[in-house]
Amino acid sequence: MKKPAWVIEKERARRAAAAETVWLFGLHAVRDACLNPAREKLRLVLTKNAADRLGEAIAQSGLEPEITDPRVFDKAVPLPPESVHQGAALEVKQLNWGRIEDICAAGEGNPLVVLLDRVTDPHNVGAILRSAEVFGARAVIAPARHSAPETGALAKTASGALERQPYLRVGNLSDAMERLKAMGFHLVGLDGEAEATLGEALVAAEGRPVGLVLGAEGPGLREKTRETCDVLARIPASGAFGSLNVSNAAAVALYAAATR
Amino acid sequence: MKKPAWVIEKERARRAAAAETVWLFGLHAVRDACLNPAREKLRLVLTKNAADRLGEAIAQSGLEPEITDPRVFDKAVPLPPESVHQGAALEVKQLNWGRIEDICAAGEGNPLVVLLDRVTDPHNVGAILRSAEVFGARAVIAPARHSAPETGALAKTASGALERQPYLRVGNLSDAMERLKAMGFHLVGLDGEAEATLGEALVAAEGRPVGLVLGAEGPGLREKTRETCDVLARIPASGAFGSLNVSNAAAVALYAAATR
Repeated sequence: MKKPAWVIEKERARRAAAAETVWLFGLHAVRDACLNPAREKLRLVLTKNAADRLGEAIAQSGLEPEITDPRVFDKAVPLPPESVHQGAALEVKQLNWGRIEDICAAGEGNPLVVLLDRVTDPHNVGAILRSAEVFGARAVIAPARHSAPETGALAKTASGALERQPYLRVGNLSDAMERLKAMGFHLVGLDGEAEATLGEALVAAEGRPVGLVLGAEGPGLREKTRETCDVLARIPASGAFGSLNVSNAAAVALYAAATR
Repeated sequence: MKKPAWVIEKERARRAAAAETVWLFGLHAVRDACLNPAREKLRLVLTKNAADRLGEAIAQSGLEPEITDPRVFDKAVPLPPESVHQGAALEVKQLNWGRIEDICAAGEGNPLVVLLDRVTDPHNVGAILRSAEVFGARAVIAPARHSAPETGALAKTASGALERQPYLRVGNLSDAMERLKAMGFHLVGLDGEAEATLGEALVAAEGRPVGLVLGAEGPGLREKTRETCDVLARIPASGAFGSLNVSNAAAVALYAAATR
């Protein structure tokens, strides 16, 4: 049985993370990274067609693009197979977003953050970054290990949000949770078996900054993560069957917290 | 440039739909279809390992499984490349859910339905079916053409919901909308530029059954679809950038409508 594309991507990503560079791909992701002054850029590989479409973004990147024949693009750049690169790839260093205390305290209003406990699928994490940006979350926080690494596939699903939405990788998730609690955050862990509904848990957190904690589909929250939450809450289901995809659960929780 | 997996899948699906059979794959999707008495099943192809894991579901299917060597599985079954089939594939006919009037009026409570205007990505539609089931939507309704067909990839993302959540394909979406309006449905079209927020639109619909209408990312709702809605509403965004993935927007709207 073949490995699925996202497993291959994850393995590749682990190697890339070790070398501390990432290949972003696709017109949207490459354009957004080119326009991000905080992003350290190393190599820009484009087809003639993609270069025409990226125009001003190339000038902003400060890089001299390497124009490549579309027929050999896949050989010029180490992307996973089936990557929808649209003839555009950019090698970058990972973004450094700084410390939790600085990024989660900053700005006006009641801070909102998302914590992910071992969510490994880059498509889910990319979609969560998009939703986190839309609902104004200060950061998405995940453990450095056993999480979706910052890869091209994640960037593409994030549709630009990877450049703008802080995605902090921490050594230990429950330590990060304790630091947020010390800052006054009320941590709401999503758990389908919880007694309280999400709405009830958010009413109880009124006036306080909120951290939404989500686990991977299947295993859910780890024991230690669960214990470190202030409250567990479920998204109320009408049907007897089924469960939400983790990125959909995150979007629902972010909406509920942002509009409370 | 290679075609992405989902485009290849869509093309394959279009051919399959013409022949009126679909190959479902993956242990979860195959098990759920085997256990669904309403599902007309034609061929069940399994590796020995998958057969051991499906156990009782095979007996329920009423089919004699064709046991295949894992090394030739890809040749035995016409699946798109990179399909995560786990050694299990089932050829089926599409489900017939019946008429809108019957399925959307049925049951207790205030009916809730989802209408999709040309949402073509099977992963998005699969995730929307999952969320629709969780929040008790009567049906997900989409035009027969220019929508994600009922394929293996869609079934896998739907994680079982395809067997339980009505997914109605109609000849003309605005005709279906008029039929729902005649039944008393209040149709709320999601549109990022709308004046009213989703919360406001749902308050205005109080006590009435609601239809949530979503378009594809990018093009959004078509002119005719937009005009047929009772009201347009936006999901309130806190940030200046970004937009929700369509399946996340659907989950948020379903949550808001189900918990109003």
